Amino acid sequence: MTEFGFIDRIKQLCQSLPTNSFEGIGDDCAVFPINSSESLLFTSDMLIERIHFLREAISPYDLGRKSLTVNLSDIAAMGGQPTATLLSLSIPKELANSWVDDFMRGYRDLSEECGVALIGGDTTASKGDLAINVTAIGRVVTSNIKRRSAAKVGDTIFVTSPLGGSGSGLDDILRGEYTSPLARLHNSPTARIKEGVWLGGRDDVHAMMDISDGIASDLRHILKASSVGAEIELTAIPCHLGAELRHALSSGEDYELLFTAHHSEQFVNDYLTQFGVTPIPVGKIVASEDITWLSNGTVQNDDFRGFTHY
Amino acid sequence: MTEFGFIDRIKQLCQSLPTNSFEGIGDDCAVFPINSSESLLFTSDMLIERIHFLREAISPYDLGRKSLTVNLSDIAAMGGQPTATLLSLSIPKELANSWVDDFMRGYRDLSEECGVALIGGDTTASKGDLAINVTAIGRVVTSNIKRRSAAKVGDTIFVTSPLGGSGSGLDDILRGEYTSPLARLHNSPTARIKEGVWLGGRDDVHAMMDISDGIASDLRHILKASSVGAEIELTAIPCHLGAELRHALSSGEDYELLFTAHHSEQFVNDYLTQFGVTPIPVGKIVASEDITWLSNGTVQNDDFRGFTHY
Repeated sequence: MTEFGFIDRIKQLCQSLPTNSFEGIGDDCAVFPINSSESLLFTSDMLIERIHFLREAISPYDLGRKSLTVNLSDIAAMGGQPTATLLSLSIPKELANSWVDDFMRGYRDLSEECGVALIGGDTTASKGDLAINVTAIGRVVTSNIKRRSAAKVGDTIFVTSPLGGSGSGLDDILRGEYTSPLARLHNSPTARIKEGVWLGGRDDVHAMMDISDGIASDLRHILKASSVGAEIELTAIPCHLGAELRHALSSGEDYELLFTAHHSEQFVNDYLTQFGVTPIPVGKIVASEDITWLSNGTVQNDDFRGFTHY
Repeated sequence: MTEFGFIDRIKQLCQSLPTNSFEGIGDDCAVFPINSSESLLFTSDMLIERIHFLREAISPYDLGRKSLTVNLSDIAAMGGQPTATLLSLSIPKELANSWVDDFMRGYRDLSEECGVALIGGDTTASKGDLAINVTAIGRVVTSNIKRRSAAKVGDTIFVTSPLGGSGSGLDDILRGEYTSPLARLHNSPTARIKEGVWLGGRDDVHAMMDISDGIASDLRHILKASSVGAEIELTAIPCHLGAELRHALSSGEDYELLFTAHHSEQFVNDYLTQFGVTPIPVGKIVASEDITWLSNGTVQNDDFRGFTHY
């Protein structure tokens, strides 16, 4: 079963549960309105040794930062500002001292840089692998929330930066090259918080999510939720320096934002003024379902799929 | 380092972080006021195979319920009503189908019984142990919140029910007796949600927490946070049928509530009317620090400590 198979199964098993005013499973975050204009956002991500990282391939400091980054990215992907986290750690006895201190320094430094509180969590022993779980809470003006379900036919599909660097870095790590530039990028991703908050405030931006499993997989969530399709021009996919197209399409952990918007010169210029770069158009939203892959406008028969755990 | 050593170290490392209007680490839950009268409560607990449970000693259904129970108990311990959870699961490949279904049925059934939404989480593979993390969110009238820091000299110390059954059941499990009555109690604890909410509404109740590591350990958190001491009458400690005093004092996972209150006939009668039993007085709050253990009024030199992971 894939991760999304799990999520569908869990949704099905739990459909009898109340919602209690939460908008739950199905987007990057759950949403809870706290007054007439503002909502809280909630997301959890778990990082497991030998599944998400190799202990010898990432410093505890970087792992502390990355554990937080992947959650902040989900908050940003709905247009929210991260405000607090809960951190749970399961720690093998031999790492109980300096390793944890270094991990926490990384977690603390990124929390400080992003103005995020640490409000709770849990620490336990482990007889095997390290396990890390972060729950992040964000705040957002309710009308700024960007959902996967809001893509409109005719929208341009954008990404915030070149893709595939992290996936290519993972290849390096699996070859034992832990300190290559792309391995370092894989270990030290950046959450696009400022971009997410800014895009959240734009009415011309419609659907948004972060790219954690590769655009070929993640875009399908937007398409399914919005009941639309997409045409993607492969020659327009921006590849990170040193990464191949397959990494840009199907590798995980870039943590760039993927969004659909009404494409205007004004929008692109405003983004450029704000961030010093332009967002990168890679295709458009169409009515027919699923993804059509084009190369210089010619339909390709390849099917690209993102990262799956099982 | 003990779990509490970790928490103190993490608090120290993170003291430079903003609070963002959250009341954070230091109680059963973090508190976030959402308007002039109401707050949200947040707590996370992680359950790790071979640390918190043996896969062969607990059914997936019971483990699903228990993973939720331990978190609901923390919400109840501050007087709150649980409203939603996020669930993260790291699952070995061989358990990816029917085991997960049974686990989720347990989690779902208790969620339904308690009116709690499931709003998100994460599912990942594991190459070793099962890892489970639950973040629970509660709602509470802000003036009803019971903190560890509110014990007053002269208060009576109460527990909601006899103690030690879970710890004694764990002894059974470690002897391979997975289906004894107390082993079943260990695997199927109950969170005292109704009691917690009711006690939250009482002005004569001052400090409260849940007993997860044994009263001898947990009471010290109330004493430290309130800058007071306690006299505990050992002959008054209620032992669960089949459990010994050492289990009642120093074993974990009873999930009964421990609270301090102004002791009046009215209070005890109101509780009795509400729940059909009386709360059980075990001692009193005094000015001098730490715990004085008494047996029929005579000071004992024993020192009892609760469960620690390291």
